[in-house]
Amino acid sequence: MKIGILTAGGDCPGLNAAIRGVGKAAVLTYGMDVYGISSGFLGMIELEYRSLSELDLSGILTLGGTILGTSREKPFKDQSYGEYIRSKPDIILDNYKKLGLDCLVCIGGNGTMKTASKLSDYGLNIIGIPKTIDNDVWGTELSFGFDSAMMVATEALDRIHTTANSHKRIMVIEVMGHHAGWLALYSGIAGGGDLILIPEIPYDESVMCDYLTERNRQGKPYSIVVVAEGIDFPKKKKKKKSAANYIAKMIQEETGMPTRETILGYIQRGGSPTAADRILATRFGAQAADFASRGEFGVMVALHDQHVEAVPLSEVAGKLKLVPGDLPLLRKARALGTCFGDTLST
Amino acid sequence: MKIGILTAGGDCPGLNAAIRGVGKAAVLTYGMDVYGISSGFLGMIELEYRSLSELDLSGILTLGGTILGTSREKPFKDQSYGEYIRSKPDIILDNYKKLGLDCLVCIGGNGTMKTASKLSDYGLNIIGIPKTIDNDVWGTELSFGFDSAMMVATEALDRIHTTANSHKRIMVIEVMGHHAGWLALYSGIAGGGDLILIPEIPYDESVMCDYLTERNRQGKPYSIVVVAEGIDFPKKKKKKKSAANYIAKMIQEETGMPTRETILGYIQRGGSPTAADRILATRFGAQAADFASRGEFGVMVALHDQHVEAVPLSEVAGKLKLVPGDLPLLRKARALGTCFGDTLST
Amino acid sequence: MKIGILTAGGDCPGLNAAIRGVGKAAVLTYGMDVYGISSGFLGMIELEYRSLSELDLSGILTLGGTILGTSREKPFKDQSYGEYIRSKPDIILDNYKKLGLDCLVCIGGNGTMKTASKLSDYGLNIIGIPKTIDNDVWGTELSFGFDSAMMVATEALDRIHTTANSHKRIMVIEVMGHHAGWLALYSGIAGGGDLILIPEIPYDESVMCDYLTERNRQGKPYSIVVVAEGIDFPKKKKKKKSAANYIAKMIQEETGMPTRETILGYIQRGGSPTAADRILATRFGAQAADFASRGEFGVMVALHDQHVEAVPLSEVAGKLKLVPGDLPLLRKARALGTCFGDTLST
Amino acid sequence: MKIGILTAGGDCPGLNAAIRGVGKAAVLTYGMDVYGISSGFLGMIELEYRSLSELDLSGILTLGGTILGTSREKPFKDQSYGEYIRSKPDIILDNYKKLGLDCLVCIGGNGTMKTASKLSDYGLNIIGIPKTIDNDVWGTELSFGFDSAMMVATEALDRIHTTANSHKRIMVIEVMGHHAGWLALYSGIAGGGDLILIPEIPYDESVMCDYLTERNRQGKPYSIVVVAEGIDFPKKKKKKKSAANYIAKMIQEETGMPTRETILGYIQRGGSPTAADRILATRFGAQAADFASRGEFGVMVALHDQHVEAVPLSEVAGKLKLVPGDLPLLRKARALGTCFGDTLST
Repeated sequence: MKIGILTAGGDCPGLNAAIRGVGKAAVLTYGMDVYGISSGFLGMIELEYRSLSELDLSGILTLGGTILGTSREKPFKDQSYGEYIRSKPDIILDNYKKLGLDCLVCIGGNGTMKTASKLSDYGLNIIGIPKTIDNDVWGTELSFGFDSAMMVATEALDRIHTTANSHKRIMVIEVMGHHAGWLALYSGIAGGGDLILIPEIPYDESVMCDYLTERNRQGKPYSIVVVAEGIDFPKKKKKKKSAANYIAKMIQEETGMPTRETILGYIQRGGSPTAADRILATRFGAQAADFASRGEFGVMVALHDQHVEAVPLSEVAGKLKLVPGDLPLLRKARALGTCFGDTLST
Repeated sequence: MKIGILTAGGDCPGLNAAIRGVGKAAVLTYGMDVYGISSGFLGMIELEYRSLSELDLSGILTLGGTILGTSREKPFKDQSYGEYIRSKPDIILDNYKKLGLDCLVCIGGNGTMKTASKLSDYGLNIIGIPKTIDNDVWGTELSFGFDSAMMVATEALDRIHTTANSHKRIMVIEVMGHHAGWLALYSGIAGGGDLILIPEIPYDESVMCDYLTERNRQGKPYSIVVVAEGIDFPKKKKKKKSAANYIAKMIQEETGMPTRETILGYIQRGGSPTAADRILATRFGAQAADFASRGEFGVMVALHDQHVEAVPLSEVAGKLKLVPGDLPLLRKARALGTCFGDTLST
Repeated sequence: MKIGILTAGGDCPGLNAAIRGVGKAAVLTYGMDVYGISSGFLGMIELEYRSLSELDLSGILTLGGTILGTSREKPFKDQSYGEYIRSKPDIILDNYKKLGLDCLVCIGGNGTMKTASKLSDYGLNIIGIPKTIDNDVWGTELSFGFDSAMMVATEALDRIHTTANSHKRIMVIEVMGHHAGWLALYSGIAGGGDLILIPEIPYDESVMCDYLTERNRQGKPYSIVVVAEGIDFPKKKKKKKSAANYIAKMIQEETGMPTRETILGYIQRGGSPTAADRILATRFGAQAADFASRGEFGVMVALHDQHVEAVPLSEVAGKLKLVPGDLPLLRKARALGTCFGDTLST
Repeated sequence: MKIGILTAGGDCPGLNAAIRGVGKAAVLTYGMDVYGISSGFLGMIELEYRSLSELDLSGILTLGGTILGTSREKPFKDQSYGEYIRSKPDIILDNYKKLGLDCLVCIGGNGTMKTASKLSDYGLNIIGIPKTIDNDVWGTELSFGFDSAMMVATEALDRIHTTANSHKRIMVIEVMGHHAGWLALYSGIAGGGDLILIPEIPYDESVMCDYLTERNRQGKPYSIVVVAEGIDFPKKKKKKKSAANYIAKMIQEETGMPTRETILGYIQRGGSPTAADRILATRFGAQAADFASRGEFGVMVALHDQHVEAVPLSEVAGKLKLVPGDLPLLRKARALGTCFGDTLST
């Protein structure tokens, strides 16, 4: 049996652990031939790949990034490819056959699962593995990459605390998360954020400012505000400003308290994965090899009640897992005095 | 309503996060009076405590250890106390009344839950919160402290790898775990251990040595062996040797390959908790305050299928959660070539 | 003997280690009374202070920030203070006498040393201790805070590498340094930066772009560009852009290669100090107590050829230690292929 | 020009950074051919080596260990080699000629510099580069590896603090250092050790115990004792005990205070180097290439008053740089209340 592995979309910690998980189980347990496809779906179009032996898969467990490279290529979006007459999906199908693959394991986030689902419909044997620092892949309780990004963001918040305290300032920190606020919520709570803004909860500026002013009045000399990059703010200001910049300026203007902002940026998605992410990526990878061995295709590997299971790609594709308003952790954080900027915060 | 909080048994990362979680929710949401009891159950015997305001609970989220102190005092084991005629449990009950407590939150591991259960039978309103770097508290999928210890052990393994590789040696690393092998298993897999020995799986020395010799024969220049401190080894050697020392010597004698050992020791239980442990400790703590507010006593806060729930202390007490032989992760690790020293490894 | 200690200017790792060094040596070795002045020179104006016992100084060695607080108050710049008729320097002198101080230890960067020198001329017994993440205090080979900031920036670069490699991108990272490029230079070299831009070396955009294009031509799939925030770029673009943003856009436009930027921001100055910074801050602090005990005032504690010595504040004030063009490290980095964007780079 | 590079003795962080420094400068600046010799001097005996291109030297800056491997082979100690009639030094000289080397760069500690010096006398063109986590190489103010080991030991001490405080215990931590106490001294001070024992300062058990008892009497609930592995203790106990074990037992018996020990072990020498070590190793490496290019042989690269200079290998060989009794840092640490167990401590 021959299987291909690719990593697509933004990079995140644990990709190599997952590649190793699929590949080592495939080679050692099932005697499969394993091909690493380069640069996500682009490698399937341009037929760039290499054979992966067990040795190629050794020593990569701890490495950040992906040894296969990645790209944001979406073959179904703009289907034309250079001078070729055939569409990209057709080229991928041809190359899949040319390589003699029995299965293609696609490691990626929401966009990748969408493409994976369409390729499955197109006739390829596909298994998806969810990775994302945003934790917004639908159908799985957790994706690998999230714990590592949370750790980086939390350590950054720990550092910011000392500056906030020394200067008696309000510090606004922007973490990643275009649509889902998981990373802001979890790192915000783990990092002792006082006010946390996420895309799923509309905020009220007066609630926020009243909260911060009240803290000040109680003698708390500083506050930490964590904002997800994807929160909504006035459109005309979006061109030139980040969420953190908008919020920081607004707070300073409204409350008169000195405010500074910082944007964590790319450090959130790089580096060596945490132990928990290495374990999860390894579990997902080895499970994908299991699925492949017994011909279970068109599915995504998913975590459900502590178990790794299969979820049909068709159920996952096109959906986003957002922070629900009734998440128990939200209620608990409120109980401890954390503000989410909404009217429930009063 | 008045609640007391104590931390008992060995310290671990997240104790302060849990204390803060109980206390802040109790004060801010339920308006309770909160007392911090010093040095575990000893503080209940000697009546050492202090009132905890919200301010006392600020800024401790990230701190390792416990601001309350801890001890290994087991009031039901040796019940006599100094010259007093009354037994320790009686003294604790008296002091509980003297303090006017409505509830005592006991944060600890297996031993603490046992004592907590007996105090509950004795008439006190008890809520338990599970902490342990061993992850062996029965009745909960996870206890806080485990993720942090796993991270420390995994980072240590990462460091050991470079030495093993540079010197072409077999490195034997001993991690904590008297009865349960969770920490050795998880950090071993996350840290790329080749051979992992845990108390739950009897090992065969010839299986181990054959495996290591075979790796060497395949041109793999080094191997990482992770052992839990609690694995069995010949009794007469126990007085002077650690598990790591026994295994390292045995391997070197049997295989002739150069071998070195290292014992991680106390660094596994100290320091600032990981983000995941801070979240879990916070959830557990806030939930305990909820339970207290609605008079749900005699229970331990527990994680079950992602949810924080109540488990009767009577069900928890006296049991240990060990690594089951059919744990899916075990099978997955085997599939990737990890050896567990048992005959299944051949 | 009575001494006061204050921390002024931006916070940085090691401030508490230095406070502890001064204070413990003063109390334990010289039996002095020690006062901690709040919020930099503002505390001397508003007479906010507290007595510091040995116990107050215990357990702060590892803490980031400053337990005394800091401010950017410059008493000689805007000398008027509220409704008072006396100037701020007069108020400070009065309060110095009122407190009965024999010496005031001022921990800070360039601005602080300037103020300290003027206060010394004004008649106060002053001892300066240099701290700065920029390493630009004149008269000392090293200031504490620099090693910690370098470590944070280097770890961030390590993380950025994996993303750059996975996506085959040029990543532009901005580190702190308004006037001096020490931090960009050292973290750039330690973090494997390919192109490093610092304020002291004028860059040529065509040199930079040729270099990056040539790297690409040689098959190196990505490049890391480290820029100090203080590099010069076209004035009209300054209002809305950061240095990193300008450089990233320019590179992408000129070379056509995909480019992303990230600004490290405040995480560079927060958090626990490195071991080296703890040692240096401790040495500086203890030395300041020595100087005080023997009446050596009007000086800054400084590192020179591994020794801690005294440099007259009058020699330090108003100067900046910049990266010299003939720094051996520059030549060495060039020898390894690092580009500094200047015409020597060709 | 052809140069060989080898790494010998125990591994330490920064070896790869040094290899890269030598190699990149040699290839890019001087157009030399570079050979990597495997496993220290063993590779010169068995003629195991490979050519190193610039590409081979990319991406290794941050890696712990050594890509060349190392060994403890001492060719002048036991000169016979298998069935060969020629001595090992003769074989090395032959292979040096066979490879056509113009220079051999030897990266290592004291033992390596001794061998390097003898090989230089034997007629080879040798340049030494000092590495050691012990910082005991004579003739240089600093060797790379020390800062990284200090950081690991200091972080371990930070973790131990929380356990010591929670349990009110005396914790005894053993760090590396057979002859020199630099690592124990520096990490002890950086990690807030109360009592520090190093091989250079004979300790008095009653001084130590009085000090610890006095701390306890003053209400300080715990103490941290840092011991170098090489301190002297009664010979008959050495077979079965470590320094930490001996000291911990002795303290507990003499003072009655609960005491625990931990031995840091191999984690001190593995892992990615600190930023400072990467810089130092890079400087040393590039300087060695400079020396080679201008025919400056028989020397060791050394740090002296911030500059990288050449020191004759003949001056370095056979000496050890120990902690001098009049080291200013010792006096400063005493001023802050640190005890060194000697009679000066009273």
